[in-house]
Amino acid sequence: MNPRSVAIIGASQRGASTLNREPRGNRVIRNLKSFGYPGRIVTVNPKYTEVMDCPCYPEIAAIPEPVDCVVLAVPNRHVPDLLDSAANAGVRAAVVFSAGFAEIGPEGKERQARLETLSRERGFLICGPNCYGVLNVFGKAPLFASTIPQGFLAGPVALVSQSGGLSTTIANALMLNRHVGLSHIVSCGNQAGATVEEYFNYFVEDDNTKVIAAFVEGFRQPYKLLEVARKAAEREKPLIILKGGRSEVSQRAAATHSGSLAGTAEVIDAAFRQTGVVAVRSLNELMDAASVFSCERFIRSYQGGRSIGVLSGSGGECTLVSDAAANVGLEVPELTETTKSQLQDAVSDFGNMNNPLDGTGAMYDDERIFPRLLQALVDDANIDVVTVNLEANDPRPKELKSGNRFSAAIEKAAASSKKPIACFSSIVGGPVDPDILVPLREAGVPLMEGAECATMTIRNLAEYYEFQRGRKADRSNAAAPVFAKTLASGILSAATSFRLFEEAGIPVASTLVTRNADEAAAAAERMGFPVALKIESAQITHKSDVGGVALKLNDASKVHEAYGRIINEVRRRVPTAKIDGVVVQSMAGAGVEMILGVKRDQLFGPVVLCGFGGILVEVLKDVAVAIPPISRAQARDMLKRLRGFSILTGVRGKPPADVEALCDAIVGVARLATALGDQLLGLDINPLIVLPKGQGAIAVDAVVEIQ
Amino acid sequence: MNPRSVAIIGASQRGASTLNREPRGNRVIRNLKSFGYPGRIVTVNPKYTEVMDCPCYPEIAAIPEPVDCVVLAVPNRHVPDLLDSAANAGVRAAVVFSAGFAEIGPEGKERQARLETLSRERGFLICGPNCYGVLNVFGKAPLFASTIPQGFLAGPVALVSQSGGLSTTIANALMLNRHVGLSHIVSCGNQAGATVEEYFNYFVEDDNTKVIAAFVEGFRQPYKLLEVARKAAEREKPLIILKGGRSEVSQRAAATHSGSLAGTAEVIDAAFRQTGVVAVRSLNELMDAASVFSCERFIRSYQGGRSIGVLSGSGGECTLVSDAAANVGLEVPELTETTKSQLQDAVSDFGNMNNPLDGTGAMYDDERIFPRLLQALVDDANIDVVTVNLEANDPRPKELKSGNRFSAAIEKAAASSKKPIACFSSIVGGPVDPDILVPLREAGVPLMEGAECATMTIRNLAEYYEFQRGRKADRSNAAAPVFAKTLASGILSAATSFRLFEEAGIPVASTLVTRNADEAAAAAERMGFPVALKIESAQITHKSDVGGVALKLNDASKVHEAYGRIINEVRRRVPTAKIDGVVVQSMAGAGVEMILGVKRDQLFGPVVLCGFGGILVEVLKDVAVAIPPISRAQARDMLKRLRGFSILTGVRGKPPADVEALCDAIVGVARLATALGDQLLGLDINPLIVLPKGQGAIAVDAVVEIQ
Repeated sequence: MNPRSVAIIGASQRGASTLNREPRGNRVIRNLKSFGYPGRIVTVNPKYTEVMDCPCYPEIAAIPEPVDCVVLAVPNRHVPDLLDSAANAGVRAAVVFSAGFAEIGPEGKERQARLETLSRERGFLICGPNCYGVLNVFGKAPLFASTIPQGFLAGPVALVSQSGGLSTTIANALMLNRHVGLSHIVSCGNQAGATVEEYFNYFVEDDNTKVIAAFVEGFRQPYKLLEVARKAAEREKPLIILKGGRSEVSQRAAATHSGSLAGTAEVIDAAFRQTGVVAVRSLNELMDAASVFSCERFIRSYQGGRSIGVLSGSGGECTLVSDAAANVGLEVPELTETTKSQLQDAVSDFGNMNNPLDGTGAMYDDERIFPRLLQALVDDANIDVVTVNLEANDPRPKELKSGNRFSAAIEKAAASSKKPIACFSSIVGGPVDPDILVPLREAGVPLMEGAECATMTIRNLAEYYEFQRGRKADRSNAAAPVFAKTLASGILSAATSFRLFEEAGIPVASTLVTRNADEAAAAAERMGFPVALKIESAQITHKSDVGGVALKLNDASKVHEAYGRIINEVRRRVPTAKIDGVVVQSMAGAGVEMILGVKRDQLFGPVVLCGFGGILVEVLKDVAVAIPPISRAQARDMLKRLRGFSILTGVRGKPPADVEALCDAIVGVARLATALGDQLLGLDINPLIVLPKGQGAIAVDAVVEIQ
Repeated sequence: MNPRSVAIIGASQRGASTLNREPRGNRVIRNLKSFGYPGRIVTVNPKYTEVMDCPCYPEIAAIPEPVDCVVLAVPNRHVPDLLDSAANAGVRAAVVFSAGFAEIGPEGKERQARLETLSRERGFLICGPNCYGVLNVFGKAPLFASTIPQGFLAGPVALVSQSGGLSTTIANALMLNRHVGLSHIVSCGNQAGATVEEYFNYFVEDDNTKVIAAFVEGFRQPYKLLEVARKAAEREKPLIILKGGRSEVSQRAAATHSGSLAGTAEVIDAAFRQTGVVAVRSLNELMDAASVFSCERFIRSYQGGRSIGVLSGSGGECTLVSDAAANVGLEVPELTETTKSQLQDAVSDFGNMNNPLDGTGAMYDDERIFPRLLQALVDDANIDVVTVNLEANDPRPKELKSGNRFSAAIEKAAASSKKPIACFSSIVGGPVDPDILVPLREAGVPLMEGAECATMTIRNLAEYYEFQRGRKADRSNAAAPVFAKTLASGILSAATSFRLFEEAGIPVASTLVTRNADEAAAAAERMGFPVALKIESAQITHKSDVGGVALKLNDASKVHEAYGRIINEVRRRVPTAKIDGVVVQSMAGAGVEMILGVKRDQLFGPVVLCGFGGILVEVLKDVAVAIPPISRAQARDMLKRLRGFSILTGVRGKPPADVEALCDAIVGVARLATALGDQLLGLDINPLIVLPKGQGAIAVDAVVEIQ
């Protein structure tokens, strides 16, 4: 990131007809010079002794002084050898612009493997290949393949994008359409060496960076992601991620039933949610989030809450914002009576005193009105964030624009306001007027575009605030006691599974393996009726299919009879099975049937799933996921995200279920998943019966698979 | 719309310091003159004899010649009297800019009522109040309150927006950011006279208008909306509507159980879907839809289909488009083998031949590559629409922009292509470069902004095409035979309900009212066992609560016994009820339990609802709605929109259900709703049992309420 000297390979004395077509090596040199790079620049090219006033050497080994970093802008076939010779010459880092690696198939994959080996075995730092490189703004070191615009804006946002093209698209739009300054731009392409997780970590540590914004196509070190996201949360540096490729990754064949229910996209969402990552879904949302989270004065004055006040000169826009707010879960509360009486004479002729507050044409005709309306929203006790609809991107000629008539009043209000004020335009698009944008931003008022993006961004802010508050309050997160276990591979017996569950604090139905009918009847007497009998045999998974189950047995004689019937039936239908006995199990009372399980995700390893049994899970895939360890608060959040959540709180005249006991069971399963680690292939409790409030939850049947 | 002469009331000789502050009356005169209005302009103001070179009279009655239309830009309190005197003077139409009517509460409502009366009783045409008026572009008649920009672009799109502010925002953005021309702008405000439905109708008839785009807050004549939308569909004029206020309208208290399940927003969605309205959800979607649907050459070359080809120079953008396409239901298919072999040498060095097709940096370095990639997508047989990622809104200085390097090649490809080509930018926002936008548009290539909006818009186009194809194919739509009925008010008896259902073609369980146990047993023998018995009494709605139901009776003796038990039990528990007998009903076999009903919507009257019984409807509100008449194809569409649809096609090892029979039942219920008209307060069939495929569907229990 901060090399004292760089060697450019792939610069040439041949000029280029236009800036767009100059060799990338030359462009890097021009970028370094225009940024005032304080270190030394040398080039490598056997044809010349100097390029663009920098000394040029025939090969890396010939450079007389030490080089911190090489920049490779050469055809891909030369890259591996050049990096080897750089490493041999004592260079420790490289930026590789060249494409034609893992992204193009087998030949390229092999080429990339050489880079990965070099990075792994010799600790050589590589950015790329297939990237635009690294731009360290405060270090004045743009090892960057794209032309950098004049008037580059330095600031608190570090931007990470694997894609080079989008890194500049986002950066330019942030600077020019949002007046947001950058501390770094990183385009790391195929991540053969440094990964996005490592860059995140660097920026979490970097003092110049306050906000990290990223477009990521694939994570290479998912566990590191969780760790760095937690660290970013602790330091209160928002990590904003647009994750592409949600539909792309093929799902691994599921090891257990519940395992087939959640794709990787849902697991990534869960990982983001648990670690406080601000997850966005489009480039414009990414920009607006970066704009708002990096607006220091705005963020400082935000004290949580989802209630927005809206001021607009257009009644239509008021309607649209209300819809957009409702869509994302923001409130647009009524104004207080105090505000209404304060507004009474200001709005005498034109309107109701509602929120959204419609200033109508009157606001344009009489310029004393707007500041009073704005101040009323700032002062209103029901409102957490004041938003002002302002056309800063009106495409018409300046004299016809309306936005600049109000921005001075907003700046003035912001100067004395303790409440955050943000502006948003009606339409996304059009040229953003810097005469409006820049002074507002400097007054701590960020600009967003469009009602949809603006409300979504404030919702994201509110969620981040809620996450931070929860994180600080939730001490249970830390405790995830681990008990070491080594288990034989295969499907565990019911008895073994249930013992494991008990150790992890998951309540199970009373269960005993019995060897004859008398033992079974005696066990049933001790447990209390009704009971169920189930055949116990490692060879039989679907017990009811072979006559191996009897339910609702109400007295000892029925247990006796059922025992004999089960043994005979199973022997007849599966003569080869080794029968270990018959399990007697007390039958739980009526409750809500849930499934609770663990599947292995290809990125994050064990993932806990929870959903309702029956059609909700089978037809609607209504499943919530989280990554262990899971705190009680996180378990409760999982349940709240289920579409059928209201079933647990009591619908159709049924009593509310014991949600606390269900949370305990989720925490227990997560603890078990952590304890078993890679041994655990899959776990499926189906059903877990959640009894009415205060009566607990009981695992009735389960399959645990060990690898 | 086309007045031969107008009188402006509210213009003044007092000038204004800036364009923004001039009196609205003066602004209209300036607008009329700058547009070259061919008719006569007079003004009314007792202080002057002329204003802005137009003759001025002290009052309307004093104008010597006939006036077609008056324009009122005066304080609201003067409006009603002025309109009265205009009507008395023989004027037939008015545009009322003034605010302060129904939108401000009781006083304003009263004021507006006078306008409504004038409009209703004397046929006086009123646009407004609280609006910007009407701009007829081809008639050169801008009776419009806002300053009109120079270089106004005439074209095929009529824009209707109640909101004045948004009408100009949308119009300017359409013209300047999309190069879309307009035939009219209408801001009709409170719709005291002419309604949005009437304007739609005018534009459906208007030859200059090919596409209608509208932002609507409230419909005043919903039945007219359905009619005009059907007419627009027949004439193949797309009607694009952004409906605001989705969360605003309070739901009417439900008359029946299923009635509580669908809000007005869902009903409006259903109305749009059934009549082919292109429903959009944001201003930018509205703009992109108007842009694409009005691009004549593009639309002509589109032959249906949801498969897009994507060309971009950024791998990251390729990922984002794939995600966005998957989100809205578009396909991004594999390229054909022919295309792949065609591309083999063009992409030798840089990539896979996938769709999205990533041109990478190579496309920027070698300008021969881009046209070949584009042509390959145009020629590919798997692709219906070619989309090109092009930064036409790059905010950087011109020499650093990339978009204009490719637009000429796109124009060239479009000139010879029989396949539609569209462009889209990565980010929404930034100044759109007219040097790219205008020639592309003229070549039949519309520009959209952002992957999300672009994919959504092409999806909207595909749906519109599918709707039109379905409309032409679906002859069943027309036939909705009506049988006249007049029914007594209240809850109908089971027997009456079931007779109605049979007349409407809805199959019902065999049902007979019996007067004694012998009759009941004999009826059961004829129907076949098992049967159910249910008490028949107008006073008893919840039959099972009072012991009035017996199920699964397998032989005559059980029917005999149950008959006596039911009569005794009901007499004991509801001694006041008049008992009409006991209904014997054959019990349907096992099937999928649905609910099917009719509720009255405050806008559209009777609405048919259909959903699954049990938790899907009670917890998840999984209900589909449609407005009668409903064709079989529309009934099938309703079912497909249910989240639990797969239950009908067979899940968990169950056989597929008789979907055709269910569709017949939906069509029958719709027919019944039409036949009964306003008499029907609510109808609730619960359950309708849908038997396995080929075995039909049977209404088992129903409540019908007549007013």
